[in-house]
Amino acid sequence: MISTLTQLPPQALTPEFVTRFEPTSFMFWLEMFGIFACSVSGTILAKHKNFDAFGCILVAMIAAISGPTARDIILNRYPLFWMVNMNYLLIITITSVGFQMFCNPKARHVDGLLKLFDGLALAIFTLIGIQVAQEMGANIPVCILLGVLNILFGTVIRDMLCNEIPLVLQRELYITPAIIGGILYFVLQVMDIPSWITQSLTMLTIFSIRMLAVQHDWYFPDISLIKKASL
Amino acid sequence: MISTLTQLPPQALTPEFVTRFEPTSFMFWLEMFGIFACSVSGTILAKHKNFDAFGCILVAMIAAISGPTARDIILNRYPLFWMVNMNYLLIITITSVGFQMFCNPKARHVDGLLKLFDGLALAIFTLIGIQVAQEMGANIPVCILLGVLNILFGTVIRDMLCNEIPLVLQRELYITPAIIGGILYFVLQVMDIPSWITQSLTMLTIFSIRMLAVQHDWYFPDISLIKKASL
Amino acid sequence: MISTLTQLPPQALTPEFVTRFEPTSFMFWLEMFGIFACSVSGTILAKHKNFDAFGCILVAMIAAISGPTARDIILNRYPLFWMVNMNYLLIITITSVGFQMFCNPKARHVDGLLKLFDGLALAIFTLIGIQVAQEMGANIPVCILLGVLNILFGTVIRDMLCNEIPLVLQRELYITPAIIGGILYFVLQVMDIPSWITQSLTMLTIFSIRMLAVQHDWYFPDISLIKKASL
Repeated sequence: MISTLTQLPPQALTPEFVTRFEPTSFMFWLEMFGIFACSVSGTILAKHKNFDAFGCILVAMIAAISGPTARDIILNRYPLFWMVNMNYLLIITITSVGFQMFCNPKARHVDGLLKLFDGLALAIFTLIGIQVAQEMGANIPVCILLGVLNILFGTVIRDMLCNEIPLVLQRELYITPAIIGGILYFVLQVMDIPSWITQSLTMLTIFSIRMLAVQHDWYFPDISLIKKASL
Repeated sequence: MISTLTQLPPQALTPEFVTRFEPTSFMFWLEMFGIFACSVSGTILAKHKNFDAFGCILVAMIAAISGPTARDIILNRYPLFWMVNMNYLLIITITSVGFQMFCNPKARHVDGLLKLFDGLALAIFTLIGIQVAQEMGANIPVCILLGVLNILFGTVIRDMLCNEIPLVLQRELYITPAIIGGILYFVLQVMDIPSWITQSLTMLTIFSIRMLAVQHDWYFPDISLIKKASL
Repeated sequence: MISTLTQLPPQALTPEFVTRFEPTSFMFWLEMFGIFACSVSGTILAKHKNFDAFGCILVAMIAAISGPTARDIILNRYPLFWMVNMNYLLIITITSVGFQMFCNPKARHVDGLLKLFDGLALAIFTLIGIQVAQEMGANIPVCILLGVLNILFGTVIRDMLCNEIPLVLQRELYITPAIIGGILYFVLQVMDIPSWITQSLTMLTIFSIRMLAVQHDWYFPDISLIKKASL
């Protein structure tokens, strides 16, 4: 299409629509659904803030790919997935435009929807972050940290761009379910449980704890042993 | 000058005042002017917020080089341009100090100046971002995204550091002109237009749309098809 | 422990408890103390904002390792130190949990403690940032810039996450002591002063200026030559 593209250097990032995971696999559909969930929550929030169409798409992209991008930069894992595989940007754009056209984010169900999609993204992205870090040879604490970062980074930047109080600042459990899920993942792996059960249980645990925390206003107990003493 | 500098590892980042572009070329002067424009807008904003002299220089540096730095980290393009070529930090420092000494940013023309220099930087940095991404072999959507990122990243961080509402949050078109310019760039390239015309037209388009948007309060039409329905 | 860890790729990041610096060296204890100081200040701030236990640990990690991480990404220095050496995450976690359990950050001495630990971290991290950049072959201005970035990046992100006005925005000298210390470091190096004296003097200078600035409300003089003229 463009003449200069024929003189590309050998490390050329040729566009591919081939996916990292087997297209028929569980993880493939899961990752795409995670990207979809992040795009929806990003678009909802950006529309609430009266961003224009391109602004909403940009916030959706930031919500969906900046966490995994930070993870890959930290792991020195190049080229970045969204540069070689156009599925990601495509799904985000279509999701964001479609949501802007056919949904009305001023409706009263929006806050619940936002929490729901954030919970889904939390479960999926934490699991994928852990697995990618493990593939790259990281040890267990780093894997769990990168699992948390994989979802947290995009969510925090999205919230700051939209001038919202970051989710992580709010009272309900958000990091805790991800860490519990991460520990469970490694416990199940040591017990030689089949990987699809490990993955499903990890996500289910993270999602359930997060949703229950939102529903019942669960928060982490204060671990301070001193109440009134001066420092 | 310093004895330890003689035992440098082979991958040493030796300081050079040689530029990436031919010093007599159009693109060389353009890039330096873009860096100058970003430094001016960064310094104006930082002075408004009563940062001290070093704080203003730091904000100018963040405004001018953090976007291209993010672009290069994403593209895995090392060493970073401002580490091997001292022109960048030098121009930013001189611009920022000179502006602090000889200009009074409390004057009433400042807001207009800020918008003007932001518009110039938007046009120049978007073009350079697209060209660098294309050189590295990225495909068209990624090139346009990195063009936008090239200017947006620094501007957003600058605004957040200065506790300002990010430009991208404001109502007037900001991302839209960059995307229109990016699409125009690739259309002109397919049509085999000489590169200097392509570059000039791209920048002129971005700058004009942005300035007209600021002047006439243009904004992107709402693409929602549903107005009152509940989600 | 985990079966999949045996099929690691050759670039595997095997966990090590070996440190970069000799365990008996001055720099080793210094770096660990810097990490400790950052963790304390991060934990204090996060607890003030009523983050839960995991939130406090996360803010402590961000305060302590995101600056050096940004420095290493900019220098293309992989693998990241905290991924191969578990001492860092361990010290941060223990410090943060211990501080949460045994200290009461609501006490009136807290603000002073925060400034004290921030000053210690400023002195130590600036020195380490300069030394790492110099080891990688960067030139003097880049070394000083990376020294400043080494502490500033984590502090700014910590403050933004906690919805605080960034330290850098506040009136007292913060960047200035780091830059003065950086210049002193290179002057002493040219004069062939033994390295431990150079290091100690650099840190002492940065810490003293910062503490005096906080105490006596020092600020940088306005360098503007124009007072009332219109731009």
